Amino acid sequence: MKTIGYAATSCDAPLKPFSFERRALRHNDVAMEVLYCGVCHSDLHQARNDWGGSVYPIVPGHEIIGRVTETGPDVKHFKQGDIVAIGCMVDSCQHCDQCDKGNEQYCREGNTQTYNSPDRIDGQNTYGGYSKHMIAREEFVLHVPKNLDLSRAAPLLCAGITTYSPLRAWNVGPGKKVGVIGLGGLGHMAVKLAVGMGAEVTIISRSDKKRTDAEELKAHKYLVSSDESAMQKAANHFDVIIDTVPYKHDLDPYLPLLDVDGSLVIVGQIGPLAETSSVPLVMGRRRVAGSLIGGIAETQEMLNLCGEKNILPDCEIIKIEDINEAYERLERGDVHYRFVIDMSSLKND
Amino acid sequence: MKTIGYAATSCDAPLKPFSFERRALRHNDVAMEVLYCGVCHSDLHQARNDWGGSVYPIVPGHEIIGRVTETGPDVKHFKQGDIVAIGCMVDSCQHCDQCDKGNEQYCREGNTQTYNSPDRIDGQNTYGGYSKHMIAREEFVLHVPKNLDLSRAAPLLCAGITTYSPLRAWNVGPGKKVGVIGLGGLGHMAVKLAVGMGAEVTIISRSDKKRTDAEELKAHKYLVSSDESAMQKAANHFDVIIDTVPYKHDLDPYLPLLDVDGSLVIVGQIGPLAETSSVPLVMGRRRVAGSLIGGIAETQEMLNLCGEKNILPDCEIIKIEDINEAYERLERGDVHYRFVIDMSSLKND
Repeated sequence: MKTIGYAATSCDAPLKPFSFERRALRHNDVAMEVLYCGVCHSDLHQARNDWGGSVYPIVPGHEIIGRVTETGPDVKHFKQGDIVAIGCMVDSCQHCDQCDKGNEQYCREGNTQTYNSPDRIDGQNTYGGYSKHMIAREEFVLHVPKNLDLSRAAPLLCAGITTYSPLRAWNVGPGKKVGVIGLGGLGHMAVKLAVGMGAEVTIISRSDKKRTDAEELKAHKYLVSSDESAMQKAANHFDVIIDTVPYKHDLDPYLPLLDVDGSLVIVGQIGPLAETSSVPLVMGRRRVAGSLIGGIAETQEMLNLCGEKNILPDCEIIKIEDINEAYERLERGDVHYRFVIDMSSLKND
Repeated sequence: MKTIGYAATSCDAPLKPFSFERRALRHNDVAMEVLYCGVCHSDLHQARNDWGGSVYPIVPGHEIIGRVTETGPDVKHFKQGDIVAIGCMVDSCQHCDQCDKGNEQYCREGNTQTYNSPDRIDGQNTYGGYSKHMIAREEFVLHVPKNLDLSRAAPLLCAGITTYSPLRAWNVGPGKKVGVIGLGGLGHMAVKLAVGMGAEVTIISRSDKKRTDAEELKAHKYLVSSDESAMQKAANHFDVIIDTVPYKHDLDPYLPLLDVDGSLVIVGQIGPLAETSSVPLVMGRRRVAGSLIGGIAETQEMLNLCGEKNILPDCEIIKIEDINEAYERLERGDVHYRFVIDMSSLKND
C-alpha cells in the first residue's frame, strides 16, 4: 500500500514529507487510517539518533489513534470503521513466558517497536504513526472506548501505559498513597491515572510553581521537595512513587518518603542514576525499580478505565507541518503536557 | 543482678573484662546464662564508634545462645533450663502496624537494640552478649531447636536472620533461582538457607578462588563475575540476588543477571552505592532493594528451619580473652566464616 508520512532522513535533518510503501495486508493484519498521533520525547531522540541505532528514513510516532480500513481474513476482533489504537509495539514472539503473561514489552526475544525496528517476517524497518496509514497484526491493535475524545486519546498509548503499568504492577488502588515526581507528559498521566484508580495522589515538585496545575489535575496533595520540613513530615508516607524525571537526578531525598516495603519506580530516566545511599533501602526494605511501557492486555485495561472515568491527557493539537517546531518546544519543556498531531493535516498530494 | 563481661571503654581501647549490674528481673523478663555469643562485624564497628553514636562502656554481642536461669512471673513460654537465643533486638513499641506485622526491625518508634541502645523503661544503655548473663523481655527471646549444635548456632541470630528475612520476603523456595554475592558471614548463611529452602543457589564471586568453598556449602552453581561470557550467559537468570558485600560497589554488572521482576537485595553495605544505570531496571522491571535483619516471628521460623534441616554456620570457636585478636582477623577478612565466643571462657573472678 502506498502511503505518505513525515520522516527524518538523517540525524540532523528536520522531518519532511515522505512517500513510502506499507506492506500488503497479511492474514492477521489490521489496516487503518491514522487520525491522531501523539508526539513523545522518544520520537525526537530517535529522529536525532540520540540513543544510537536509528535507521533512516525514520517515520516516528507510537501513540496512534486510527479508523480501521481493512482487515486480513483471519482477523477476529476488528472490522472496518472501528476506532482503534496502536502503541509502542507492533509484534513480539507470542510464545515466551513473558508474552504468555501479557508482558510483551519484556518479550524474551525482544519486542518489535512500532518504528525503527525490523519486522519479524520481512525484516523491513517499521514506520510509525506520523503517516496516513498504519498496518499491524491484530494482537497489537487496541479498541478505543467510544466516549473518549479521540483528539486527546493518542498519548494514552505511551505516556498513559508507561505510568499505568507500574501503578498496576504495584497494586495501586483505594487506600494506597502514590507520589509523582516530574509533571510532564508522563507525570501528569501518572497523576490522572492514580487518581482514577482511587489512590491518594501527591505531586512532588521542586518549587511551588505547579500548585495550580496540581489542582487542575485533581492531585490530593502537593509536596515541595526543597522544603525540608515538609519532606521530613512526609517521611514513610508513600506506597509507590512514580519517578518521571527524564534525566540523571538524585534519589536520596525521595527514598525516605517511601513507607516500609515502598517502591520508587523509574519510568523517565533511562541511563545513569546518581550515587545513592543504601541506608533508606535497608532501613525500610524499600525498593528502587524501573518499568517499561506496558503489556497489550493492560493497555486495553487502561484504555477501558480511561473510557469509564473519562481520563484524558492535556493536549495541544498541532498540524503535521508544525512538527519540527513542536520538537523544538518539546526540548525546551514548552508543552502542556503533550502534543498530538491531527493527521487530517497530512495531505495526500 | 551483678555480672561480668567484656567491654570497650573508648573507641580506641581494646575490649577488657568489665563488671556491671544487669537490671532486676521484670514481670515479663527472661534471664539467662550466656553460653555462646557470635562476633559480628558490627560489634567491631560499634566498639570503635565507626558509625558514631557509641555510648561507652560498650558490651557488644547480639548473636546470643543461653540457658534460662530465671523467669518473671508473667513469662509464659519459657522456663528455667530452656535453651534460648537473643538476636539484634530486645524491645520495640509492640503496638505499631510494623510490630503487628512481625516487622519489629522496622518498628515505627524504632526498635531497642541488644546493646548500645536506651532501654524503653529505665533509659539505661543496653549491654550485649559478651557477658555472663543476659536479660530480655520474653517477646524477644527465641527457642533454640534441641538438635542444633549450640556452639555453632549463635550466628543464626544475626547473619542467619539477615539473609533469611529477604529470602522469605521475596518468596524463595523450590523453583526459585537465588544468587549470592560476597561469601563471608552473611553470604555463606544466605547460601545455606536458600539451599535449605529448596532454591537453586549460585555463588557469584570475582574469581575462581572460592569454588571449593562453594561446593562445601552445597551451592548448585558458581559464577565468576570477571568472566564476561559467563555473565552474559547468566543474564535474566535470577529471581533474587542477595548482595552481602559490605562496602561501596558497582551494581551494574549484577542487575542484568536478574530475571524480569527480579530483585537485588542489599544486606551488606549500609552507606553509599556506586552510580548505577537505570537501564536494566527499566528494561526488565527489576528492583534494587535493601533489608534489615528480620522480625521475631521469622527469626523463630528460621531457627526452626535450621533445626529441621540441621543448617548451621561454619564457625571458629574462640575464648573471650582472644576477642581483640579476633577483631583484627575480622578486619582482615581472616575468618571462615564467623567467630563464636565460648562464654564458659569468661571466668567469674
